[in-house]
Amino acid sequence: MITSISNPKIKDIIQLQKKSRLRNERGLFLVEGIRMAREIPANQMVQMYATADFYQKSRQQLPQEIRPELVSEQVFSAMSDTKTPQGVLAVVKQSEYQPETLMSAENAHLLVLDNLQDPGNLGTIFRTAEAAGVTGIIMSRDCVDIYNPKTVRSTMGAIFRQPFVYVESVPETIAQMKKHGITVYAAHLQGRQTYDKENYRAKTAFLIGNEGNGLRQEVAEAADVWIRIPMEGEAESLNAAVAAAVLMYEVNRQRRK
Amino acid sequence: MITSISNPKIKDIIQLQKKSRLRNERGLFLVEGIRMAREIPANQMVQMYATADFYQKSRQQLPQEIRPELVSEQVFSAMSDTKTPQGVLAVVKQSEYQPETLMSAENAHLLVLDNLQDPGNLGTIFRTAEAAGVTGIIMSRDCVDIYNPKTVRSTMGAIFRQPFVYVESVPETIAQMKKHGITVYAAHLQGRQTYDKENYRAKTAFLIGNEGNGLRQEVAEAADVWIRIPMEGEAESLNAAVAAAVLMYEVNRQRRK
Repeated sequence: MITSISNPKIKDIIQLQKKSRLRNERGLFLVEGIRMAREIPANQMVQMYATADFYQKSRQQLPQEIRPELVSEQVFSAMSDTKTPQGVLAVVKQSEYQPETLMSAENAHLLVLDNLQDPGNLGTIFRTAEAAGVTGIIMSRDCVDIYNPKTVRSTMGAIFRQPFVYVESVPETIAQMKKHGITVYAAHLQGRQTYDKENYRAKTAFLIGNEGNGLRQEVAEAADVWIRIPMEGEAESLNAAVAAAVLMYEVNRQRRK
Repeated sequence: MITSISNPKIKDIIQLQKKSRLRNERGLFLVEGIRMAREIPANQMVQMYATADFYQKSRQQLPQEIRPELVSEQVFSAMSDTKTPQGVLAVVKQSEYQPETLMSAENAHLLVLDNLQDPGNLGTIFRTAEAAGVTGIIMSRDCVDIYNPKTVRSTMGAIFRQPFVYVESVPETIAQMKKHGITVYAAHLQGRQTYDKENYRAKTAFLIGNEGNGLRQEVAEAADVWIRIPMEGEAESLNAAVAAAVLMYEVNRQRRK
């Protein structure tokens, strides 16, 4: 059992919790809690850590082939990103998808996130996207890190199943999407088309902008159509994850018909 | 200018930030930031506080009749719920609505929240509800406090405009809603009806449950119809604010037609 936070493995994990750059250099991220730990694909699992207490009570909930390394409660507290740790944490390999693969999906239903900043919003978008049947999520390089511990948690496991990729230039990606026959809709407060008057049965991508500022102009201008979600009262905008959900489920509704 | 956090007015505000019970006994709550401060209805404004710096730079953004009491930066930090305070905070009267009024709305579109616990979810639901044209929000007494500072912020001003009420018994409220000719739909993972196959042009209420546990059985059983939002992949549920948004915007879509 590891009982010292000076142990190099533990120091390493504490750094991986904090530093997005380190996670990306190493191609790793961290996953906490039994629910998420059970959903880790076997080929992405690197190492699992658990407290003796967790292991004794809950080992039968873990896949049989997993042998977690045991650590003391105090060490686990130092490793954990949460206030009330469950006592299980895994080091996991990052996924690797190519933009080309996402754009080639037969019945593409894509989200393009431009400079999205809130970790909870991003996680919620992943969670909703899986449920709505989104085939891929494309993010600008300056979006919040999907491997942020709060984001990982709020995906509720969708991070393991939802294909996604970061790209350097969103306008260039939009140009490529158009070559693949994808219609690109910008969710925009100045949109003229009400979102539910469009036909999303063909290949579709939605552009979703930053929480405070919306889409960057050069991104919005690259879209085929600007759409808006009608708002009553004095509401000025919707939460980004809510706006994305309304659009994704409109596609889902039309494609189920 | 108030320069001491021992000032009784300041001590009072610090208590109001922390204590839900005190806010409700006094019928008051706190609002921070210029954006929210500008939306406070005149008849609910009790007192505004600002830093000298804020007042000098931004007084023209406040309604003319408002004379904030000035406080030092240090005092403002102690009063504020945020890490990077903007320098303006108001004490505001709570709204008072009657359940009967909400249920009597001509084209009722109601949300009933049963034991919702996440402050951010509740705020986002208020924000979305205003935009979608919801006529009232009814909450079980054990929902998170709408006057929680984080919740107030995430309503983005909808708290001032969206009618809402807390009730002691949700099943009794459902019985009353039915007498008003309102059809009551439970959002439920075991729902047989897909949500978008129902007709929401007549008076409609949705029951939305706790984030982890869903609706309490006695609440779900009181509904007229159980509906579900279809989910693909291995998604087990949607975020409560997302599920509510999909339902509210389906009503909005049908009623716009």
